[in-house]
Amino acid sequence: MSRRSLPVPDLFAAATAGDRGALARLLSLVERGGDEAREVSRISYPVSGKGYTVGLTGAPGAGKSTLTSAIIGHLRSLGEEVAVLAIDPSSPFTGGAILGDRVRMQDHATDPGVFIRSMATRGHLGGLSLATPEAVRVLDAVGRRWILVETVGVGQVEVEIAGKADTTVVVVNPGWGDSVQANKAGLMEIADIFVINKADRKGVEDTRRDLEQMLELSDLAHEAWRPPILPVVAIEKRGVEELWATVQAHRDFIEASGELTRRREFRLREELREIVARRLELRARELATGDRWDELQAAVFHRTMDPWSAADEMLKSVGA
Amino acid sequence: MSRRSLPVPDLFAAATAGDRGALARLLSLVERGGDEAREVSRISYPVSGKGYTVGLTGAPGAGKSTLTSAIIGHLRSLGEEVAVLAIDPSSPFTGGAILGDRVRMQDHATDPGVFIRSMATRGHLGGLSLATPEAVRVLDAVGRRWILVETVGVGQVEVEIAGKADTTVVVVNPGWGDSVQANKAGLMEIADIFVINKADRKGVEDTRRDLEQMLELSDLAHEAWRPPILPVVAIEKRGVEELWATVQAHRDFIEASGELTRRREFRLREELREIVARRLELRARELATGDRWDELQAAVFHRTMDPWSAADEMLKSVGA
Repeated sequence: MSRRSLPVPDLFAAATAGDRGALARLLSLVERGGDEAREVSRISYPVSGKGYTVGLTGAPGAGKSTLTSAIIGHLRSLGEEVAVLAIDPSSPFTGGAILGDRVRMQDHATDPGVFIRSMATRGHLGGLSLATPEAVRVLDAVGRRWILVETVGVGQVEVEIAGKADTTVVVVNPGWGDSVQANKAGLMEIADIFVINKADRKGVEDTRRDLEQMLELSDLAHEAWRPPILPVVAIEKRGVEELWATVQAHRDFIEASGELTRRREFRLREELREIVARRLELRARELATGDRWDELQAAVFHRTMDPWSAADEMLKSVGA
Repeated sequence: MSRRSLPVPDLFAAATAGDRGALARLLSLVERGGDEAREVSRISYPVSGKGYTVGLTGAPGAGKSTLTSAIIGHLRSLGEEVAVLAIDPSSPFTGGAILGDRVRMQDHATDPGVFIRSMATRGHLGGLSLATPEAVRVLDAVGRRWILVETVGVGQVEVEIAGKADTTVVVVNPGWGDSVQANKAGLMEIADIFVINKADRKGVEDTRRDLEQMLELSDLAHEAWRPPILPVVAIEKRGVEELWATVQAHRDFIEASGELTRRREFRLREELREIVARRLELRARELATGDRWDELQAAVFHRTMDPWSAADEMLKSVGA
């Protein structure tokens, strides 16, 4: 029986036993959305919750993938297994056909303790913001204890996703102060740890000062956990051990303070609301047929009614 | 009476008469969302529809802002007025405090025929995807005939927004084939015109071949309008005249073929659905209170129920 035709519970059992193909198939089902994704969710949800997610984000070119690769190497040297979910369209993990950088990842490609998966979410109702936590839960449910989520730090949805990890690492480069290559305000809000990658270039101290200054201006500086700023040269693996020790320290801190539980509760509440909203949206699309709707759409198109007023009228018909 | 306290209809009249401060204020109201944004929409909607939007998108660092600036210069030399909406977090138009690049924009800062505005949308229900078309309509309604919308070509929402212009220009650089710096598949889908910016660097022909190949693999190559690929050196204004002639040619083409009307109808229908969905979401949040909801949330948090099943239960209570 090919994997393609295996029922979800069988796929799940196989993936839990270490079958990478079965795990990949489960994640494809999640990406695609629909009834089978629901079934994956139903099975994986009750047995998830033991894994820990680390988000890595930053501007394209900041060296997130090289850093991810270095972290994988470090975790493996500690005997830890790790799963990576890449939802950065500029990541070599995610990539298209021509992937110069991907070569670096080949180091880990044959290692059974490493599972790397890119996410594409066409077709998933709710897109990345709903597919990502589901995919993380699948990895978690089949026994992966460390789950790295790499996203690009530009884009409304992508920054939000990065902020939903248990520990979020924001990767910048020397000179980021001038390059304005990322959504700074958004990234400042979600950072638990800053990494200045490519710290062998000049400008590290300026960048540190810039970050410190922004921290002072934000509320973060005065919270119990002040985001540390770590220089790293990922390509030479310099600073990676310190980074991982800091991730561990952050984990210990949020576990001990109850912050981890609060974060996870908040995230689940938000996810629930988003699922409810997406299902209402589907319902609205189903209802968006019939003469009255056509009339309203025509009125908007001919500018005799504005979209918000038309939406009011439409919502009356569904009692909302 | 300060602008801050002027009623929306007065602001609108002032903006139409050329008052840039009043126009900026209207756009701030749109950004903020809420009742005043609704009023802005109600007033601007019936008198909009004469402007033409050109989307510019590409990876951070592709030179979108330099190109935008060069296009502004070209349009001004033709005696045309132009408005720019920058929703690219890496754009110097949008930017934070330290904006080296912004200096270039100062060329146009004092020109009354140019209006540049960056978008931040915290607080707007529906975020960028709903705030952007509203902001475009305000610019349109007060008489701006060319509206450039600059977005960064990474990020689910941002690529979608870029694709909602009347003509969409995707900016790449020589070597993009290797650099994997952008969401290629997403960008391919929305491109009406490709610009290879920084075309004084080597690799232009490889990049052109790469794009041609991707076009062949997609359906675009066989459509009536095959996206042209134009080499440009924006910083020296080389190729900008040709680019603008191509934008005009695309406009003529979609106007004559009826494609413009179809695109705008489709966009409005999608926007209406999104407004309906967002209002249903608000409704869901209002309803997401009470003992039953707390119970369901607790069940999800304690993993005795998965989020989708909990959402089903919640939706039953609102009859959807």
